[in-house]
Amino acid sequence: MFGEDFFLTLLDNYFVQEKKGLLVARGDDCALIEGKSFALSSDLFLEKVHFDLRYFSLEDVGYKALAVNLSDLAAAGSWPEYFCLQLIWPRKFSLEQSEELFKGMSQLASQFKLTLIGGDLSQGDTLGLAITILGSVPYRFLPRKQAKEGDLVFLVGEIGLSRVGFLALQAGISGYPRSKQAHLRPRPLVKEGLILAQKNVKSLLDVSDGVARDIFRLLPEGLGLNLFSDLRLPAEVVSFATARNLSPLHLALEGGEDYALLGVVEASQVEELLADLPYVQILGEVSKGAGIYYQGKKLELKGFDHFS
Amino acid sequence: MFGEDFFLTLLDNYFVQEKKGLLVARGDDCALIEGKSFALSSDLFLEKVHFDLRYFSLEDVGYKALAVNLSDLAAAGSWPEYFCLQLIWPRKFSLEQSEELFKGMSQLASQFKLTLIGGDLSQGDTLGLAITILGSVPYRFLPRKQAKEGDLVFLVGEIGLSRVGFLALQAGISGYPRSKQAHLRPRPLVKEGLILAQKNVKSLLDVSDGVARDIFRLLPEGLGLNLFSDLRLPAEVVSFATARNLSPLHLALEGGEDYALLGVVEASQVEELLADLPYVQILGEVSKGAGIYYQGKKLELKGFDHFS
Repeated sequence: MFGEDFFLTLLDNYFVQEKKGLLVARGDDCALIEGKSFALSSDLFLEKVHFDLRYFSLEDVGYKALAVNLSDLAAAGSWPEYFCLQLIWPRKFSLEQSEELFKGMSQLASQFKLTLIGGDLSQGDTLGLAITILGSVPYRFLPRKQAKEGDLVFLVGEIGLSRVGFLALQAGISGYPRSKQAHLRPRPLVKEGLILAQKNVKSLLDVSDGVARDIFRLLPEGLGLNLFSDLRLPAEVVSFATARNLSPLHLALEGGEDYALLGVVEASQVEELLADLPYVQILGEVSKGAGIYYQGKKLELKGFDHFS
Repeated sequence: MFGEDFFLTLLDNYFVQEKKGLLVARGDDCALIEGKSFALSSDLFLEKVHFDLRYFSLEDVGYKALAVNLSDLAAAGSWPEYFCLQLIWPRKFSLEQSEELFKGMSQLASQFKLTLIGGDLSQGDTLGLAITILGSVPYRFLPRKQAKEGDLVFLVGEIGLSRVGFLALQAGISGYPRSKQAHLRPRPLVKEGLILAQKNVKSLLDVSDGVARDIFRLLPEGLGLNLFSDLRLPAEVVSFATARNLSPLHLALEGGEDYALLGVVEASQVEELLADLPYVQILGEVSKGAGIYYQGKKLELKGFDHFS
C-alpha cells in the first residue's frame, strides 16, 4: 500500500496528465483516448539483459527505456502521444531512489509532451521496465519491406558508437565519451522520422540489433546491400577498432542499439532528400542476394542479439 | 536469433493478425490501428509475485495474464480489440514449452477475437508477462468515483473464492475446486461489463485487491459501505473459513484477485437492474465515513496487496 501510493505521487510530480483527446487519465481501470489512428509499440528494458547498473545510473535507465520506445515511433514516422509504464522495482532500491528513474524518463516525456496514461507496478529481484507507446501519424506511416534493386539505402544517425560505448563501459576503458553517451543516453530521432515521412522515402526502420541484421528486416526477402566505398564512420569507432586490430566497418555494421534510422529511397529522389537533409548518409545500393557486399565481397557479419 | 524466430512462428500459429481497423499488423516498428477512441490498460504478471509455478501450469499463466487485463476493460465497459505482449522468458524453460503459455492465452484471445499487435521478448531469471490491452467503447466508459450517500453498491461475480483457492493451493489442501479454478483461471466478466454500460450504472471497477480495499477506489473520498445483512457468500469460502475459525465475511471482503465487478447504482434504478441482471447481488448502501460497516459496527479489514 505504502509503495503504491508513494510511486503514484511521484508519477504525478513528474508526468502531467493533461492532453487534448485524453478523455480519462490514469487512475481509473483504463485510460480512454480519442483519436483517428495510432502507431503503437512495446519494448522491454531489463537489468542484466539490456542494461548494467554498474555504469547505468537510475536516471540513465529511465531515460533510455523511453528513448528506445520513442525510436520505434520515429521509424514509423509517428509523433509520440501516450505511454504506459509497467515497472518491476527491486527490493535492493529504496522507494525514494525511484525518483531518479522518473527524472530521467521525464526529461524525454516533457520534451515530447508525451503523456503517461497507465501502467502497473510490482516488486521483483531485478529492475525492469515494460513500456508501451502510442503515437499519432501526422503525415504517413513509414513501413518496412518496400524496396527494389537499384534503390538507395540511407542512414540518419551514427552506427557502432553505442557498441563501442558498451564495450568501453563493460571493460572500464576510459575515454570514448560520445560512444558512452550513445549507449547510455541515445537520442531518439523522432523529429528526423517526421521529416522523412514528408519525403519520398519508401521504407524506414530504427537500427536496434545492428545494420548487419536489421538491413534484412528493412528489405524484402532476397535483397541485400551493396555498400559504397566512401562511408563515413564515427571517429571513436575507427579509433577503438584500430587500437584493437578490429575492422571499423565490421564494428559499425554489427553495432547494436544504434537507434539510428535506416531507410530506402528511389535513386531518382536522392538529390532532393540530400538537399533538404544534409545529415543523411547514403550507405549503398539495394542489390540482389541477401547479403552485405563491400568492394565486390560479401561481408561475414554477426548481428547483435539480446536474446541469444 | 533462433529464440526470436521460434517465438514469432509460434505466435503466428496462436494469434491471428487480421482485424478491421488494423492497418499495419505486428512485424513492423509499430502496429497501426484506426479507431475513434480506445480504453487502454496495462498489467504485470510475474512469477513469485503474481503466480507460483508449483501449481500454475504454463497454460494457466498464459490464460490468467490475459484474463487480468481483460477484467480491467470489463470494468470500464470496454470490448477488447488489441493487445501487446512483453514476455520475459526464463532459461529454465525450453523454447518449446512456451507453446503451453500461448495456448492458454489464445483460449481467451480467440474467444474475444482479440488481436495481438506487438510486443517484445527477452530472457530473464523468472517468467514475466507485461500486457497492454486496448478496447473499444461501444456504449459508454464506466468511471470510478461517481456515488453519493444512499446509492447502492452491487457485485457481479464472487468474492473470496480466489483467496481460498490461493490459500488451499499454497498449503496443498485438497478440495475447494471452484476456489482453485477462480485463482488459476478467473473468468473476466467482459460481457457483463458491456451489459452494465447499457444500464444506469454510475461507477464500476474490477476487484483485484479485495473489496475491503477497492471499495475506496470505487467511491469518492469520505464515503463508505454499509453492508446489508443478507449477503450471499460462496459456499467454499464459508466452509474454508468455518473450518479454520475465521470469519467468512472477513475472508470474502479481504479476498484479492477476485476479478468480480463492483459498482454503484442509484437506489431508484436498482429494480430495473435486477430485473435484467438477476445475478447481480446488492451488497449494501453508500454511507458517510470511509469504512465498511456491518450490523452497526465498523469492520477491521486488511486489503490484499501484491506490493507489500
